[in-house]
Amino acid sequence: MNLREQLQEKIDGKTKPVGALGILEKIALKAGMVQNSLSPEIHKPHIIVFAGDHGIAAKGKVNPYPQAVTAQMVLNFVKGGAAINVFTKQYGIGLTVVDAGVNYDFDASLPIIHAKINKGTQDYSEGQAMSEEEMQQAIEKGKEIVEEIFNDGCNTIGFGEMGIGNTSSAALIMHHYTRLPLEDCVGRGTGANDEQLKIKIETLNHAATLHKLTESSISSTDLLIRIGGFEMAMMTGAFLKASELNMIIVVDGFIASAALMIAQDMDNKILDSCLFAHCSDEQGHRKMLEHLEAEPLLQLGMRLGEGTGAALAIPVLQGAVNFLNNMASFESAGVANKS
Amino acid sequence: MNLREQLQEKIDGKTKPVGALGILEKIALKAGMVQNSLSPEIHKPHIIVFAGDHGIAAKGKVNPYPQAVTAQMVLNFVKGGAAINVFTKQYGIGLTVVDAGVNYDFDASLPIIHAKINKGTQDYSEGQAMSEEEMQQAIEKGKEIVEEIFNDGCNTIGFGEMGIGNTSSAALIMHHYTRLPLEDCVGRGTGANDEQLKIKIETLNHAATLHKLTESSISSTDLLIRIGGFEMAMMTGAFLKASELNMIIVVDGFIASAALMIAQDMDNKILDSCLFAHCSDEQGHRKMLEHLEAEPLLQLGMRLGEGTGAALAIPVLQGAVNFLNNMASFESAGVANKS
Repeated sequence: MNLREQLQEKIDGKTKPVGALGILEKIALKAGMVQNSLSPEIHKPHIIVFAGDHGIAAKGKVNPYPQAVTAQMVLNFVKGGAAINVFTKQYGIGLTVVDAGVNYDFDASLPIIHAKINKGTQDYSEGQAMSEEEMQQAIEKGKEIVEEIFNDGCNTIGFGEMGIGNTSSAALIMHHYTRLPLEDCVGRGTGANDEQLKIKIETLNHAATLHKLTESSISSTDLLIRIGGFEMAMMTGAFLKASELNMIIVVDGFIASAALMIAQDMDNKILDSCLFAHCSDEQGHRKMLEHLEAEPLLQLGMRLGEGTGAALAIPVLQGAVNFLNNMASFESAGVANKS
Repeated sequence: MNLREQLQEKIDGKTKPVGALGILEKIALKAGMVQNSLSPEIHKPHIIVFAGDHGIAAKGKVNPYPQAVTAQMVLNFVKGGAAINVFTKQYGIGLTVVDAGVNYDFDASLPIIHAKINKGTQDYSEGQAMSEEEMQQAIEKGKEIVEEIFNDGCNTIGFGEMGIGNTSSAALIMHHYTRLPLEDCVGRGTGANDEQLKIKIETLNHAATLHKLTESSISSTDLLIRIGGFEMAMMTGAFLKASELNMIIVVDGFIASAALMIAQDMDNKILDSCLFAHCSDEQGHRKMLEHLEAEPLLQLGMRLGEGTGAALAIPVLQGAVNFLNNMASFESAGVANKS
């Protein structure tokens, strides 16, 4: 028997009807496969929040909240007042906040990783979002940060983000990879009204044409350069390194899934390491998950980002691993199996 | 402003777009309403597993597992080897196991609540399942057990069950209250195959006719007497007492929802205290939830019982309460709100 079959046999031997733990059984199997073990374990689960600003957001055409909120929310993370602080604290998850490119000068003493590539990207409705150098620098930094956390004993990781305007970037990436009409990819983000949504779609249609996003010859790195964000490029590097290190990756929502599409384009094996935390309420996410053939753990109607979906999924993942390791088998418990 | 409006204002003032925490926002509001507080708290969450045998299961017509498994699983609970042990331990949830009427003589020294009404119900395909006295005794005992746990400081409770054959009883209760054809109410339980499912439906059709279950004049207590189980009658009492004590009730799956339908028939206010943990994979449960106008938190494809769905939902409920109490507001964090 290969490992997959051995894991399935172990799962089916537990004191429960076959399949009765539903998705948890699939997760347990996947965790075992990622760790190449019949007894996978979750060590020091961690969430990294990458923050970055988007030049296009300065004009307010794609975002109901002002760009300054990105920096304000980073300060909120530092003070422990955001949703991701509450959830990571509750579930015993480590949290690292990274300034990947916020348009604000943070005090050097703040307990964040200071990895600013630039003070926000350029407005991609007028030109490219970042230079090739910036893109490479961001990817390398993302890899480096994950490796440090891995070296500290973490084997399970999720990535969140903060960046006013970044659902637009994610929608354009989705548009490129899925070829779905932009209208299917663009959502209300943090809460655009009908008029704001209309302007958002128009603005992004213009950007999609400018950057010829329907051409399949565009490389993943070119896509980041043309319409990406620093937090997304850094997250792409983080995905690549986490997969290389055989970490279990808990994929958050719309933005994280977009960065994952880029990472997958660079390394197709990456999906083997990924669990999908939830289906976001951001309208494009469901179709994005379908494209990735992903089955999300949770459907809580959330659309907040920050890695909050990943945080809520980690206790479920731990439950899956725990039942695999700690439940009795029919044999060990002396329980009769099906007649 | 009334409490509901005050709670909504508090939720909307948190540093997140309005509605961005999805179902968690609704749960937070409900928790506040149940506890009549702007700052609800979860204290000593607890799950009670009621175990009981069903006379109809002795013949093996409705159940792929032999009746002896009920007692064997109670012993598995005691040894800590079942799924509910793993999840309650992981999430810091208290666990109490109750012998409500298992067809087995447990050693008096076992750390369970010994509340056996009888050694299994009578076969309701031939006559009534229990006497009126037994039914009353079970309901009273359920109330008593909840009150003790409440007095120990618990304010949040879920009910699980173990009883080979009890999906049949639940299907008949659902059939009575929803008037849906029995075929829509009966599922595969712990894993009946096509032939077993056919016999299960035939057997239950016979019982439904014998007990005139489509007559609306049948009282909730009569329904328990005719086709109920001791674990379900005790759970009915537990629901009633928990609601009376303003506890937050986390409703598990198919069996628990059936017991809740009976409790609701006795006291219509009970739903005000209930959160629905998950939508079970047992086919009738989705329609049962629709009938109850309930929005389940989780959809994990589980169909195990034991209160496992409730256990997995409790960390999400805690997350909801924690964000309400501990997240910063736009004002306190100095974050700009929507333009």
